[in-house]
Amino acid sequence: METISTAKAHGGVQGVYRHASTVTGTDMTFAVYVPPHQDGARLPVLWYLSGLTCTHANVMDKGEYRRACAEAGIVFVAPDTSPRGDGVPDDDAYDFGQGAGFYVDATQDPWATNFRMRSYVEDELPALIAAHFPVDMARQGITGHSMGGHGALTIALRNPDRFRSISAFAPIASPLRCPWGEKALERYLGPDRAAWRAYDACALIEDGARAEEILVDQGQADAFLTEQLKPELLAAACETAGIPLTLRMQPGYDHSYSFVSTFIADHVEWHAARLS
Amino acid sequence: METISTAKAHGGVQGVYRHASTVTGTDMTFAVYVPPHQDGARLPVLWYLSGLTCTHANVMDKGEYRRACAEAGIVFVAPDTSPRGDGVPDDDAYDFGQGAGFYVDATQDPWATNFRMRSYVEDELPALIAAHFPVDMARQGITGHSMGGHGALTIALRNPDRFRSISAFAPIASPLRCPWGEKALERYLGPDRAAWRAYDACALIEDGARAEEILVDQGQADAFLTEQLKPELLAAACETAGIPLTLRMQPGYDHSYSFVSTFIADHVEWHAARLS
Repeated sequence: METISTAKAHGGVQGVYRHASTVTGTDMTFAVYVPPHQDGARLPVLWYLSGLTCTHANVMDKGEYRRACAEAGIVFVAPDTSPRGDGVPDDDAYDFGQGAGFYVDATQDPWATNFRMRSYVEDELPALIAAHFPVDMARQGITGHSMGGHGALTIALRNPDRFRSISAFAPIASPLRCPWGEKALERYLGPDRAAWRAYDACALIEDGARAEEILVDQGQADAFLTEQLKPELLAAACETAGIPLTLRMQPGYDHSYSFVSTFIADHVEWHAARLS
Repeated sequence: METISTAKAHGGVQGVYRHASTVTGTDMTFAVYVPPHQDGARLPVLWYLSGLTCTHANVMDKGEYRRACAEAGIVFVAPDTSPRGDGVPDDDAYDFGQGAGFYVDATQDPWATNFRMRSYVEDELPALIAAHFPVDMARQGITGHSMGGHGALTIALRNPDRFRSISAFAPIASPLRCPWGEKALERYLGPDRAAWRAYDACALIEDGARAEEILVDQGQADAFLTEQLKPELLAAACETAGIPLTLRMQPGYDHSYSFVSTFIADHVEWHAARLS
């Protein structure tokens, strides 16, 4: 693992790191904020998965999470959203290919070789984080924004023993039932929609996955609300399954980091209460 | 004045605006955050002047000021750092020309026509802000970062009746005595160093300018500390003149927005206490 940059911020250290991923076959870059802490301490971890077009840098620059993480004593990890590089397949669209990995292990050519973000975020990167940072991997929470909200929900629902706390900002609630999701899952996973269900929070819940509780914030002025995000589908699935969902519709907020940064301190505190 | 974008953030509105500046002869872009407030309220204003290479966007994206401004009820104004555009003179260096206006009214060709950031920030933009935003121009504070810290200090010292509160992040304390300043002032103002003194906080104080008090934060790990920024020169000038300066040397912090964003809430609260 190579350190690209570190800077002191809010008493802790915001770092950017790179490593050669065996899972994706590419170099992968990620950001970690380690709050001020006592020597030898092991801190809870909050994973933040980013949305379409983002790298690790968007939330690092615009997310405004460091003050809250410093106060709560939480390590904040922000992976990239896909493999990248000249030898990696791509697509001209903003919502597919590089920058749009959808947190799946692709099975279709030419994507299957590199686009294995499920295994990367579920397995490879956690092992690296555990080895190199002062973290207590028994206390992990997960959140994300938009495509990353979808990632956070599905990864948490598939790994109920790993994450003590789950939240999302404007998540894609059901990729099986929106244009972004249908396009991506068909091309990454093939036409058999049964194979998509492991990557759809609502389908996972319908198929038996459970969570203790979920927090979701959603802007009411979000331009993607009705066509792509559809929080009502998650609300219905949770209600049927008896999963306590706190869905907060936030008047006037759009889909941008103006929205995420407004509510991220709430989320950090919410995770901290469940991880401390 | 044209609205380029607005987004709700921390209960208020972060906007980006453009207007045709008569002072610079160019379109100028700036950012304004208006916190949540009651209809008809007139709010205090905090000016934030940015550093070398920055536009209005750097602090807007990375500054983390909105939460504090929302809590304090302060309008935050971030101008650009120079005129820009195809017809505007420029220089290949990062520290001169576009993105490096140094808040002076240039007198030398080819800069004198457009590079009039002193008049722009002191006169034209305040009039526009007063006309279009819910502000109380009797309650203004000013701050800035690096070159913008120099701008904040010199503008405040030249206009003691306008600004009730003055602070800076890692300011260029004395452009007459550092490479950034000597290069810029010579090319914008010509070789007569007497003409530079109106753009040097220490020289202004030596020549009789006064301020009620000044707050400065400075990172001790700032790579520009000893060659360019030299806060000890400001400290000496303030001590001789009897100006109360709170100079906080912050261990481990560099020159970046990791530093600014860590302490900006402190500054907003400090200004709010003097403007409310």
